[in-house]
Amino acid sequence: MRNPLLVPELRELLSTDDTTTLQEFCESGHPADIAEFLSRLDADEIWDVLSRIDNRLAAEIFVNFDDDIRVDVVETLKRPEFVRLVTAMSPDERADLVRRLPEDRQETLLPALAHAEREDIRRLTSYPEDTAGSVMTSDYATLSPNLTASQAIAKLRREAPDKETIYYAYVVDENRRLLGFVSLKDLILAPGEKPVGDFMHKDTIYALAHDDQEDAARKISKYDLIALPVVNDAGTLVGIITYDDAIDIINQENQEDMEKFMAIAGRHEEHAYIRTSVFSHFRNRSGWVMALGALGLVSGLIVQSYEGLLLEFAVLATFIPMLADTGGNTGSQSATLVVRALALGEISPRDILRVLAKEFAVALMISPLLGIIAYGRVFLFAAGAAMPPGTSLHSVGFAISLALALQVISSTLIGALLPLAAARLKLDPAVVASPALTTVVDITGLLIFFGTARILLPI
Amino acid sequence: MRNPLLVPELRELLSTDDTTTLQEFCESGHPADIAEFLSRLDADEIWDVLSRIDNRLAAEIFVNFDDDIRVDVVETLKRPEFVRLVTAMSPDERADLVRRLPEDRQETLLPALAHAEREDIRRLTSYPEDTAGSVMTSDYATLSPNLTASQAIAKLRREAPDKETIYYAYVVDENRRLLGFVSLKDLILAPGEKPVGDFMHKDTIYALAHDDQEDAARKISKYDLIALPVVNDAGTLVGIITYDDAIDIINQENQEDMEKFMAIAGRHEEHAYIRTSVFSHFRNRSGWVMALGALGLVSGLIVQSYEGLLLEFAVLATFIPMLADTGGNTGSQSATLVVRALALGEISPRDILRVLAKEFAVALMISPLLGIIAYGRVFLFAAGAAMPPGTSLHSVGFAISLALALQVISSTLIGALLPLAAARLKLDPAVVASPALTTVVDITGLLIFFGTARILLPI
Repeated sequence: MRNPLLVPELRELLSTDDTTTLQEFCESGHPADIAEFLSRLDADEIWDVLSRIDNRLAAEIFVNFDDDIRVDVVETLKRPEFVRLVTAMSPDERADLVRRLPEDRQETLLPALAHAEREDIRRLTSYPEDTAGSVMTSDYATLSPNLTASQAIAKLRREAPDKETIYYAYVVDENRRLLGFVSLKDLILAPGEKPVGDFMHKDTIYALAHDDQEDAARKISKYDLIALPVVNDAGTLVGIITYDDAIDIINQENQEDMEKFMAIAGRHEEHAYIRTSVFSHFRNRSGWVMALGALGLVSGLIVQSYEGLLLEFAVLATFIPMLADTGGNTGSQSATLVVRALALGEISPRDILRVLAKEFAVALMISPLLGIIAYGRVFLFAAGAAMPPGTSLHSVGFAISLALALQVISSTLIGALLPLAAARLKLDPAVVASPALTTVVDITGLLIFFGTARILLPI
Repeated sequence: MRNPLLVPELRELLSTDDTTTLQEFCESGHPADIAEFLSRLDADEIWDVLSRIDNRLAAEIFVNFDDDIRVDVVETLKRPEFVRLVTAMSPDERADLVRRLPEDRQETLLPALAHAEREDIRRLTSYPEDTAGSVMTSDYATLSPNLTASQAIAKLRREAPDKETIYYAYVVDENRRLLGFVSLKDLILAPGEKPVGDFMHKDTIYALAHDDQEDAARKISKYDLIALPVVNDAGTLVGIITYDDAIDIINQENQEDMEKFMAIAGRHEEHAYIRTSVFSHFRNRSGWVMALGALGLVSGLIVQSYEGLLLEFAVLATFIPMLADTGGNTGSQSATLVVRALALGEISPRDILRVLAKEFAVALMISPLLGIIAYGRVFLFAAGAAMPPGTSLHSVGFAISLALALQVISSTLIGALLPLAAARLKLDPAVVASPALTTVVDITGLLIFFGTARILLPI
């Protein structure tokens, strides 16, 4: 793809029916690049291009489109075209596509497929979203334990064109129960006449079909696997997840965590920012902002109830923004670290005391520094201000510093506690989004701030 | 590893010198699991275990330890022990280990290695951190284009035990310039007598040694590769990066982005939360919190300069927390989406107008909703409050609503603008951390808030 065509040139080729040049273009680069380029065309134009090329290449390019483009293209297809495209796709891509189609469209199109493919799609789409079963593919190679290494290689060679990977082959008994696995490297290195069962790896790492897809991806990452077998509760092999799917899952989950953390709702996929409509962005983002704005009522009420104190000590009002920010910052930091450590499986809710002790120690170290900044500020800026009788700048400075220090400690602990509590309740720790946390520590912060001031300052 | 030993039992085995049981233990599970378990021992005890088992297995377990444990273990080694361990490691793991050793330790240990290994380490460690060159390995398989498919398979079989992967082999000319690649699957499917040059993939996707490691990992992810070749500026093949390293890079970079976003400094690796000392946590987290606390001076000064207005309209003070939170929330949302879209290569700084137009439209939709909440709040809670003559609740409510709406719009735009500006200046967009952004939009928000109030309300 050294000289990619421009969109107008592609449209020109379509209008002049220049199939040969279009074919050359589709063969000129990696399918992922061709798909990226074709994305700029309309759905019917995309199909106009893909319909001119070899089915297998068309499917390879097609699976690289974003989800919404794939659905849009399928919406333009007639049944025989759908069959042609889908038949050349791998089972997991096929199931993923069907899952995203509107129900009426599924009902029109699926009967056109051959029985075996329909059954395979039904089986793969039957697992709930985000499970290992929902992302696995059924195109894997199996071997019987009494095949010899040479026989096994011959079998893999025959089956290679249809399999997602032949670098791992799974050894199963007559009921397809998983006995072990061999890599193609093992097979090549083994003496030709040795039975597979004699040198297969037995302690196979696997996922259950109902496991979280993220756990499955983490296993692939931890054990450096090319593919992970998926078995059902009976121990029968039902599919595999390959390392490239694991990378996609990890990227997707990372983005979801980060967006949840920023209180952005909705389903997330790569490359969705520009393509997502303004209204969808609004829908995904406004809910939390509104809810938290409404919750801001509470902090407003707290400020209002201390109006008398504020009129007496106007300097207190100047510390409200700093109080809110400091609480949000220190709370988000501890929450980020705890959410991440939970996601990586480094800590579990059982470690709550250990985590809180650590966070408490860190907060104890940070809090005096902020107290000193606040104290200095009172002296620098409130030096000329009128003070009620019986109050010195020292006492005001001390009260404010102490309040800020307490805010650092309480928001750090709250930031660590909320994700741990969410995990305990089997919720995703990232739901304790940074904005939600900010609002919570605002409220506790204002209570601490005015409470400390009322106790230490005379009114 | 069905019945992992407890730490006291392991210590017991060490003190009674029960090498056989220790060997069985080390062979009882995946090296990653054994390493996780041994991590609970002290560095010298870990070596006491590893020194009793086969070199290759010891190295496989060893490379799964966290960075700091690996360094601690090496600190306890004598030169011959170091040589034994390091010789069994793969070149990239070896280089990674040496890179982390203190300089004097490197000087003592390296001369003990054979010349070829020393040269290899020197070459691999010569690339700057975070480049493709710094994470590649030199254990890859190469083929000459005139070998036949069967000769190529025979060569890979001979070399397999020493190579990181034999599933991709790189075709090079006599000067090691990269001509193309073949997969083991291609070789197995090709007629035995066909020369490799006739069926190799030519448009090979590669990274330059000085490319960012993240870009290399993204290529592996985008093109679903098992390995990515790394070439120097002359086009000579110098190493490969495998998919499992790509997963590690993606995980590490994701964590770094998230932590930068929360203004947590320091170098990040997986599984570091519990092992990082309280003081390191303090050092990593206090810098930004302090800097932003000091910056909070500015917002304090703004509030102070409007003290007269605040004394007149006490209700304004009750909106300061909501103003600060709303700005932080909407700004962080747009910043998160833009940082992520930049990281995925979906947008570039050139798209600034397109992004700002989109964010402006979203903010326009969110702002009236928050305006209405604020207006309602004024009526609910300030109904009985004394107002200066010539002011109605309507005018106060309108001024506050308008100010909040303007705050939503300005902080959304600032949240999108700052990462784009950082990217334009070749900085990491994530440096525009959420806390820094919060402080910026606090300042602009207070200016907007009091500015609007002063214009619309009589004093």
